[in-house]
Amino acid sequence: MGVLPEVAAGDDLALLISAALGEEAARDDHVLAIAHKVVSKAEGAVVSLADVVPSARARELAAALEHEGPTKDPRAIQVVLDESAHVLRAERGVLIGRTRHGFVCANAGVDASNAPVGETVVVLPRDPDASARRIRARLRELTGRAPAVLISDSFGRPWRHGQVDVAIGLAGLQPLDDWRGRRDARGLELSATWLAVSDAAAAAAELARAKDSREPVVVLEGLERYVTSADGPGAAALLRPSAEDLFA
Amino acid sequence: MGVLPEVAAGDDLALLISAALGEEAARDDHVLAIAHKVVSKAEGAVVSLADVVPSARARELAAALEHEGPTKDPRAIQVVLDESAHVLRAERGVLIGRTRHGFVCANAGVDASNAPVGETVVVLPRDPDASARRIRARLRELTGRAPAVLISDSFGRPWRHGQVDVAIGLAGLQPLDDWRGRRDARGLELSATWLAVSDAAAAAAELARAKDSREPVVVLEGLERYVTSADGPGAAALLRPSAEDLFA
Repeated sequence: MGVLPEVAAGDDLALLISAALGEEAARDDHVLAIAHKVVSKAEGAVVSLADVVPSARARELAAALEHEGPTKDPRAIQVVLDESAHVLRAERGVLIGRTRHGFVCANAGVDASNAPVGETVVVLPRDPDASARRIRARLRELTGRAPAVLISDSFGRPWRHGQVDVAIGLAGLQPLDDWRGRRDARGLELSATWLAVSDAAAAAAELARAKDSREPVVVLEGLERYVTSADGPGAAALLRPSAEDLFA
Repeated sequence: MGVLPEVAAGDDLALLISAALGEEAARDDHVLAIAHKVVSKAEGAVVSLADVVPSARARELAAALEHEGPTKDPRAIQVVLDESAHVLRAERGVLIGRTRHGFVCANAGVDASNAPVGETVVVLPRDPDASARRIRARLRELTGRAPAVLISDSFGRPWRHGQVDVAIGLAGLQPLDDWRGRRDARGLELSATWLAVSDAAAAAAELARAKDSREPVVVLEGLERYVTSADGPGAAALLRPSAEDLFA
């Protein structure tokens, strides 16, 4: 798709996206995959470190983590703590937080690495499912078409190197496809098969996205069977409650 | 692609695949994504439960897990233990094992759920990177073309519902793309960006695969920039050593 301009707080992201898509406008059965950072910026989910006063805990964590990793700005750590409902790990230079939404990820989703003094950090949208629904509704208003909207972030994983994109906000895309109990081609019951459709779609979009250019939006075709006219349960349905988790 | 016949131990999988692909034969810059189960079957990585004598530990685990989940066959649990270098969790009806290869997943990759008496369970290939290299070399021999080969399995994840496919064996596909330290469109250093290319490719292939049919093989196009003529380091490069992991 076309290139987005630099996005600022208050921008009409759906308008910018539809302008950038132009003739390639997404259809109702397409999925518009959006890297969350432009959504956060449009919503003003950006914190100026100059406005942050680090708590004693943030200063302690910054000092402790610095022993094991790159220098941490205690103010950026404070933003991570503000975004965290719970800190799962703070070691080896890494903070793993469960966000207020329930996502478990490095720095509670705060893009805090290498933030120079006086710089800003980007946090996750306050309610990414609501963001996805708003963008979808606005696209319908602007273009008469309402593709599914998938807002993604890149998450690291335990046990494996590297990051993959996952869905943090959804409107009109089935989060999961539950085949448990269904039967395979031989009539045998399929074993645990519970496909995280929207996370796979986020990963596919990431492969199509050029990281070093301003192309945060990718149109995915061929996923009609997972696209719904209703906005549906959103990415919140992907969250395993911590009481049911083995690695809380 | 075409449909594979039922695969049995000793079958020439590359031959079956190239026959099924027919005119659509994969090119050198394509990625052939194969669900591991047919690789396991062709390699005879299948265990007949009738041949398994459960240890005391397997019987204890089966009894303990049964309280919290569906009935477990102690012989299937024994196969999981045989496949595990280390059991990370055994609770809530689930066994999480680190396999001999280093993969952390439910049942150490053993497809043991609902195995009826007298049935077999499928285990992971002994060396999935070697399997991928062999299949690639045999495809070159048979067709003159050597697409990258990606062998996948569906893994659950902590903190999130559902499963996504990940790479467990690779030949000719870059496992990771490391952008750490590179600069973005504005000249700013990119934050932690270390894309697990082959896991994203496995997830994309899963979306294209029809679970209820015999279509374990998917041809991925458009990933030329990650395909290499050398077989490369394989999926082993994706494994985070347990000493560096925060959730061991």
